Amino acid sequence: MESVNIKKLAQILNLSISTVSKALRDSHDISTETKKKVTALANELNYQPNPHASSLRKHNSKTIAVVIPEIANNYFTLAINGIESIAQEKGYHVLIYLTHEDAAKEIAFARHLHSGRVDGVLISVSSTTSDYSHLYELQKKGLPIVFFDRVCDDFDTVKVSTDDYESAYLATRHLIEQGCKKVAHLAISKHISIGNKRMKGYLQAIKDNGLPLNDSLIIEGVNDDKANVAAITKLLREQKPDGIFAAVERYAIAAYQACFDLSLSIPNDVKIISFSNLETAAYLNPSLTTITQPAFYIGKEAASVLFKALEKKTYQLKDENIIFQSSLIIRNSTAK
Amino acid sequence: MESVNIKKLAQILNLSISTVSKALRDSHDISTETKKKVTALANELNYQPNPHASSLRKHNSKTIAVVIPEIANNYFTLAINGIESIAQEKGYHVLIYLTHEDAAKEIAFARHLHSGRVDGVLISVSSTTSDYSHLYELQKKGLPIVFFDRVCDDFDTVKVSTDDYESAYLATRHLIEQGCKKVAHLAISKHISIGNKRMKGYLQAIKDNGLPLNDSLIIEGVNDDKANVAAITKLLREQKPDGIFAAVERYAIAAYQACFDLSLSIPNDVKIISFSNLETAAYLNPSLTTITQPAFYIGKEAASVLFKALEKKTYQLKDENIIFQSSLIIRNSTAK
Repeated sequence: MESVNIKKLAQILNLSISTVSKALRDSHDISTETKKKVTALANELNYQPNPHASSLRKHNSKTIAVVIPEIANNYFTLAINGIESIAQEKGYHVLIYLTHEDAAKEIAFARHLHSGRVDGVLISVSSTTSDYSHLYELQKKGLPIVFFDRVCDDFDTVKVSTDDYESAYLATRHLIEQGCKKVAHLAISKHISIGNKRMKGYLQAIKDNGLPLNDSLIIEGVNDDKANVAAITKLLREQKPDGIFAAVERYAIAAYQACFDLSLSIPNDVKIISFSNLETAAYLNPSLTTITQPAFYIGKEAASVLFKALEKKTYQLKDENIIFQSSLIIRNSTAK
Repeated sequence: MESVNIKKLAQILNLSISTVSKALRDSHDISTETKKKVTALANELNYQPNPHASSLRKHNSKTIAVVIPEIANNYFTLAINGIESIAQEKGYHVLIYLTHEDAAKEIAFARHLHSGRVDGVLISVSSTTSDYSHLYELQKKGLPIVFFDRVCDDFDTVKVSTDDYESAYLATRHLIEQGCKKVAHLAISKHISIGNKRMKGYLQAIKDNGLPLNDSLIIEGVNDDKANVAAITKLLREQKPDGIFAAVERYAIAAYQACFDLSLSIPNDVKIISFSNLETAAYLNPSLTTITQPAFYIGKEAASVLFKALEKKTYQLKDENIIFQSSLIIRNSTAK
């Protein structure tokens, strides 16, 4: 198949190469009529601009990168759907980069994004990322970056997240109201924003309700389900908590498995609540009480903000936090 | 930050630009000692080759594309992990393109992949794709393509999948053995390979076990959970099946919801089995009997085959099918 280039389009239409090129870039110099003719033929012949050549020239790949730590998590699935709803409207492609909670991978991806591969970046940082220089470098190169969910508070850009502190406080208080006296917390890394805020909300609720603070009731999950089940089993055996607040849904599932292995009844022996957008939460045995985040809308908002910067080169992404509210959905796993 | 280019490296090392360039490409013309010196400095100064310029020259982006229909499905999550386990070993990046079961989006992605953006493609086609010319065009451009899961049987390349016909037969027979007399099938599009094979396996098992074939017991799911729940509710009301075989896990979850809405007991009123890699299958109420595919290994195998073609330009991807075996995991949703 002979590939169609601008020269060929120009020959067929009896126009200059420059006119065709300008028409394809929707230049003001070209009449609407000519633009219509050119784009009609380009579509008909399936004309594809050489993406690398045009990126070098225009720094405009019509692509955005979404860098996330995992996909086995309905929060990110829904957030991506929100992001894509905007990208599609704008005629952009979305490329997904998975870091698997590995800072080294995140750094490698950031390097990969230098030099016009994408026009902008939406990122939720990995739990092992503690230094953000790879992202500062991208920003210095002029690439707009918007954080969502797991944000870097110090970074000078827009950050879209939820009320993690308040929701964690609410989740812990809910367990206490349901009769729990010894509430454990399955935490995510304190290095990341949401881990830190969820931990603080938990600790404050424990304190405000007159329960003793006990470090042995807090364990940090890892990126390995078997290891998490083992750690939770040990916690249940040794500390005998009567309530568990899980910071992410995969830890809640690990807690279900640990309870199952130890023949502990949820909610009679242990009540469980978790941050989760799990589709099956209502059909679990027992159904899982959740703090559910408006993940789709968070993705949509983060993408909308990024496109403001993409569409107007002079638009400055402000250093601001956009905070969405989560919902407490009470189900059987925390019943009295 | 001043960016580091080959010229700068050459100046500092007092070498010619051509020598540095060759050293970075690991050319045989250059001594090991010089190569070491060049790569050490390149690493120290965080030298990044211009990805577009070098792609135009070498058609070597060190990136592969994984094109999949959805991510809210644990099969794909696991398959991606398998793919990444190989890509990481080879020093390649994996970019994920989500089609959301939309053939138009798949075609747009295929066009996006022309001209060296990626070195190879792993694809599981969307359920609305009925014409494969966008993929033939990519192949003609010299881009190696390997199919997994949802394959195009006619396509001249390697296809990695599971024994869908046999597994569907086994699933349907299991329901019949558990006492079902009226087994419904929640199908995926017959246009795609796995939909067609799962349907045939179901039909053959119905026939072999002397049950009447009844088209009203077969409904095709769509890419909209609410619509699926409504269709299944209608099916349960009007046809009163005592068994449901779901071709994908999201239809099984929709069936759980429909049963819940109609206050039907699983497994007493309706038994349910599904193709699924759902992490929570064992903790559902009731736990879900599944046909579980070795998704991680399928991804790993598909990637391994693709890298054979990437590593040796003369390697021809043969027209062959690699078939993995699935497992039947019996749980409470099909109990007698």
